[in-house]
Amino acid sequence: MARTLETTTAGCPARLMTRSAALEPVPTAVVAAGSPVALESARRAATLGLIEPVLVGDPAAIADSARSIGWTLHGACVVPARDDAAAARIAVALARSGDVGALMKGHIHTDTLMLAALDPKNGLRTGRRFTHAFHMTLPESGRELVITDAAINVAPSLNTRLDIIRNAVELWRLVGGSDPRVALLSCTEEVTERVPSSMDADRLTRLCQQEVPGATVFGPLALDLAVSAEAARIKNLTHPCAGAADILVVPNIETGNALFKALVHFLDAVAAGIVLGAAVPIILTSRADPPAARIAAAAIAQIVAGRRSATPGAPYPATAAKGGAAPGLHA
Amino acid sequence: MARTLETTTAGCPARLMTRSAALEPVPTAVVAAGSPVALESARRAATLGLIEPVLVGDPAAIADSARSIGWTLHGACVVPARDDAAAARIAVALARSGDVGALMKGHIHTDTLMLAALDPKNGLRTGRRFTHAFHMTLPESGRELVITDAAINVAPSLNTRLDIIRNAVELWRLVGGSDPRVALLSCTEEVTERVPSSMDADRLTRLCQQEVPGATVFGPLALDLAVSAEAARIKNLTHPCAGAADILVVPNIETGNALFKALVHFLDAVAAGIVLGAAVPIILTSRADPPAARIAAAAIAQIVAGRRSATPGAPYPATAAKGGAAPGLHA
Repeated sequence: MARTLETTTAGCPARLMTRSAALEPVPTAVVAAGSPVALESARRAATLGLIEPVLVGDPAAIADSARSIGWTLHGACVVPARDDAAAARIAVALARSGDVGALMKGHIHTDTLMLAALDPKNGLRTGRRFTHAFHMTLPESGRELVITDAAINVAPSLNTRLDIIRNAVELWRLVGGSDPRVALLSCTEEVTERVPSSMDADRLTRLCQQEVPGATVFGPLALDLAVSAEAARIKNLTHPCAGAADILVVPNIETGNALFKALVHFLDAVAAGIVLGAAVPIILTSRADPPAARIAAAAIAQIVAGRRSATPGAPYPATAAKGGAAPGLHA
Repeated sequence: MARTLETTTAGCPARLMTRSAALEPVPTAVVAAGSPVALESARRAATLGLIEPVLVGDPAAIADSARSIGWTLHGACVVPARDDAAAARIAVALARSGDVGALMKGHIHTDTLMLAALDPKNGLRTGRRFTHAFHMTLPESGRELVITDAAINVAPSLNTRLDIIRNAVELWRLVGGSDPRVALLSCTEEVTERVPSSMDADRLTRLCQQEVPGATVFGPLALDLAVSAEAARIKNLTHPCAGAADILVVPNIETGNALFKALVHFLDAVAAGIVLGAAVPIILTSRADPPAARIAAAAIAQIVAGRRSATPGAPYPATAAKGGAAPGLHA
């Protein structure tokens, strides 16, 4: 599909679009697609060559919503589902069979979608914890950061945090092409019993030397020492991660949530949210997400799914990435 | 003292300077003043008419540091102390006796200072929990926000959070002159058992209706719904606090720390940090604080101390605010 970088990319980081430009669109199940916002996101991502939409949901609602946004649905595939839970189960089944290479949350509660994805028998488990990552692009500088986990794991255990780190490191390597510097955030750079997150960060730093190859992991670091070279200089911290972190691992969901939202709302950063650790990437969107964030998340998912398809043993088959959804599914 | 708004105010919010302009300088103990950074902060605050410095610490180190920054110490009072713990105890005693109306952290570990202030017999306890608040000023818009507690209480209990809120509400009323809208932050606006901070915020919302007069308190709110009217509109949240919060109460220290540092480092916001709940305000500074933040914190302390001096029964006596440090203490 020819890529048309039209006005719909407004605000979507150019670097992401460039990286995904070499990839084929990924067949992507839009779960509960029957709302104007969900369909508009799918249409934009399709127009940009990021996804081949497979619209799962109530066909009447999908048709109505399509009319309301002036989309003929030409070339899109519609898979009927009687309710949200069914839409989630069907989308997950399409991913298991290799008919889609990514899921995109439509007009459905996150819990309903994740319940189907986490089903021990029929879900998308890979043995690794499902974790959420926000790929952030800061305006002007174009600086990229990953913040994790700001959306799924509330108060992650050390083992869960190990998976959070593993998943984010893989994401960074796929998207950025290099070994990331990972900062384990706390509110201090001292390891002290008064601040349990600083003790955890210290333990994780040592664990990751064995458990997470391909990354430099260090903590505890407060945010200034993770992102500001000047602050690191003033406080005489010379670790490679100090002031130069690519990935910020937060100690709890509230920290990540406030941090990414501060960057979005006060700085106009673009936040692309994705669930990792499942057999296919899952694009999570929020009702308040601007178009740029939706496009960016689809681009991230395409990069993750596209590169994975070339990896032997990766769950998403390369053939599906190039062949699109199974013909029988097309409307 | 004539106020000279010279270059040293660079970056310090004009609104704060205007508010403090009508007040007398507050005799302020600079605790462990014997470092160039500590002395420079004291000098700037004194030059601007915010404080009358009472320099507590090693006299030789104070004299050396003064020379290194080219300050003659004219008009400043030096009180010798043999070590940091002694400096903290002496500064606290000066506050107890009414000889100073504020403390300013110099070259001393926060714990050492707070240990003296928290001493049950000889400290500055008021019966209310010591809490920390950052008064934030955002550039361009000049929007003001209080973030609390990002520096002292790690994982506050509900009772501690009540004091965090009480102290911040008083601060806002002193500095801003109006009843604040208080957002209890979580990562979601839903009250759900999966996110304990959302349950806490819900309980606190009800508690505060009785316990915290003069403020509108509401949560749980994620940051976007606390600060962005647009996000509140999209998510159909019409509470007066939604999108219009003056005070952000964070569920844990890591959230507050990352949030205020994100605003400082990515947005160039000015963060003025102060300890509340003690008999006098305590200005906490960090080594990495820029001059604007140090001045802003001194201005906040002046406003808190100055207004308190006019309140019957308030710990800091009005006479001390106008008379300066006790004559016997002057060097």
